[in-house]
Amino acid sequence: MSKFKEDVEKVGIIGAGVIGGGWALHFLRLGKQVTVWDPAAIALEKLRKQAIELWPTLEKMGLAPGATLQNLILVSSLEELEDVDVIQENAPEDLEAKQTLYATFDSVIPDSVPIISSTSGFAMTDIQARCTTAARTCVGHPFNPPYLVPFVEVVGGEHSSREVVDWADRFYTMHGKQVIKMEREVPGFIANRLQEALWREALHMVANGEATPEEIDDSIKYGPGLRWAIMGPCLTFHLAGGEGGMAHMLDHFGPSLEAPWTRLKAPELTGDLRARMIEGCEKMANGRGVEEIVRERDECLIRIMKVLAEYKKQNGGGQYGAVV
Amino acid sequence: MSKFKEDVEKVGIIGAGVIGGGWALHFLRLGKQVTVWDPAAIALEKLRKQAIELWPTLEKMGLAPGATLQNLILVSSLEELEDVDVIQENAPEDLEAKQTLYATFDSVIPDSVPIISSTSGFAMTDIQARCTTAARTCVGHPFNPPYLVPFVEVVGGEHSSREVVDWADRFYTMHGKQVIKMEREVPGFIANRLQEALWREALHMVANGEATPEEIDDSIKYGPGLRWAIMGPCLTFHLAGGEGGMAHMLDHFGPSLEAPWTRLKAPELTGDLRARMIEGCEKMANGRGVEEIVRERDECLIRIMKVLAEYKKQNGGGQYGAVV
Repeated sequence: MSKFKEDVEKVGIIGAGVIGGGWALHFLRLGKQVTVWDPAAIALEKLRKQAIELWPTLEKMGLAPGATLQNLILVSSLEELEDVDVIQENAPEDLEAKQTLYATFDSVIPDSVPIISSTSGFAMTDIQARCTTAARTCVGHPFNPPYLVPFVEVVGGEHSSREVVDWADRFYTMHGKQVIKMEREVPGFIANRLQEALWREALHMVANGEATPEEIDDSIKYGPGLRWAIMGPCLTFHLAGGEGGMAHMLDHFGPSLEAPWTRLKAPELTGDLRARMIEGCEKMANGRGVEEIVRERDECLIRIMKVLAEYKKQNGGGQYGAVV
Repeated sequence: MSKFKEDVEKVGIIGAGVIGGGWALHFLRLGKQVTVWDPAAIALEKLRKQAIELWPTLEKMGLAPGATLQNLILVSSLEELEDVDVIQENAPEDLEAKQTLYATFDSVIPDSVPIISSTSGFAMTDIQARCTTAARTCVGHPFNPPYLVPFVEVVGGEHSSREVVDWADRFYTMHGKQVIKMEREVPGFIANRLQEALWREALHMVANGEATPEEIDDSIKYGPGLRWAIMGPCLTFHLAGGEGGMAHMLDHFGPSLEAPWTRLKAPELTGDLRARMIEGCEKMANGRGVEEIVRERDECLIRIMKVLAEYKKQNGGGQYGAVV
């Protein structure tokens, strides 16, 4: 299928911080041999401790045959990653440092090894700017913690090969991830753009004394955030439209797109945009009427609320809603 | 405590749509007598059907003593709401229509009955502009479906009494809701501002061909949305900062606030804003270190993912991540 190894056994990780460490745990759980390089010895030591602490969590998710902490190898130089099957790069978000690192890959890491960046928002075109083996590099952007949250965005840069992007899509999918393969580079990809819009509005509100961080968090986790674990904002609003679905929702709340409900101006609700939103929701509904989706959502929501009620109780937070 | 009845037995609902109907179900479940008025007879008939269909869902949440569908009374005129203890108003989002309705309350609904609006974003000051009994009116903004999602934002307008705002806070809290009582009117309140920022960025992305509605939804529900059911964006990012928490996160990702990750410009990250964000997270952490919160989050996340895996399987969606 490609010059890259399909049946990955050895994963190389660059960076032992929150994201790099999280990827290491994910692949350890799936039975891989995981070699982690970080220039800071202390970061590697912390990762070893963290891996021991979090192993019981990974066990709860289910270990693949052969999965063991013994498969975690910590190394002090990039050269020691030369015989891995793939590298997940989690260097700090510093474009120049990443460019230098990617230029170094040329001579140190065989060209048959895909190198995938966890970057939160740099364009791969920029990251790979000084790399002559750029064809085997692309982005695979996870969410914290990568050993649990399934979403990964895959996208190539100008010099990435189609091959490596397709390979990364298969690789993550095979390893339990929910992948979106983007056809073109968009700053911040998809999820981070959405998350960042919400985050910046939150920062504005705190800066202007409109809400405290605690109020921001409560309003999300007891409100829209509770629903978003089950379905995204589009299908959520499709249901808010009642029988009329997204079409009714857009017509009813269309005027409020003009309202100063957030500092972000909305795009014009053109006929084309309206049609795309409705069509997307119909595809997701997949023949199910609003009532049917509501029943399914409610069933799931109640079960999640029961989990959250227990979580809140355990953490001394008192009652959760009126569920249990 | 106030001239309003503390021990509510009879709830009046105006509007039998998605939100009004949802409130009716919530209060029916809690054993109240619920009288619903909607000028459209067909809306009332739909609500009756919906209530019958959703009753098994409410049973799963647990019925209060005396809760029965027999307590649902559908009426064809506002006058028939005159002897309820509180009114939840869910008229369409049309400011002029709401103003007319609130002016009508003066002569029809006794002044001892609090009238609370579910408005998604109108200021109560505007809604109550032509109402002479405005002191007993305020906003109680729920999230769909109100019979499940616990969050309610309570805020008064210029002519609302302190008394009615405090009463509404107690009323909802007593009835299983998670309430934020806002001290001042902010367009869109808190959660809708955050949600709307995300939604508008999503609309921009669809309008510009950067993502489809399906990709928007997947990116949220498999990514940040999954985490937001457990904790809001602030504490989530506190954990993303590793041991250094929110302080490290802000310092590391501070520069990306300048990046074009969303069309919404971020506020300046002043020392004051930085301090407020850190202080808020420390309050929420409540003495727990990042590691401890991570363990608790992971435990909860795994349980939620197992619920979601089953939900996805039941709905023919295939595997969910690599959890089960």
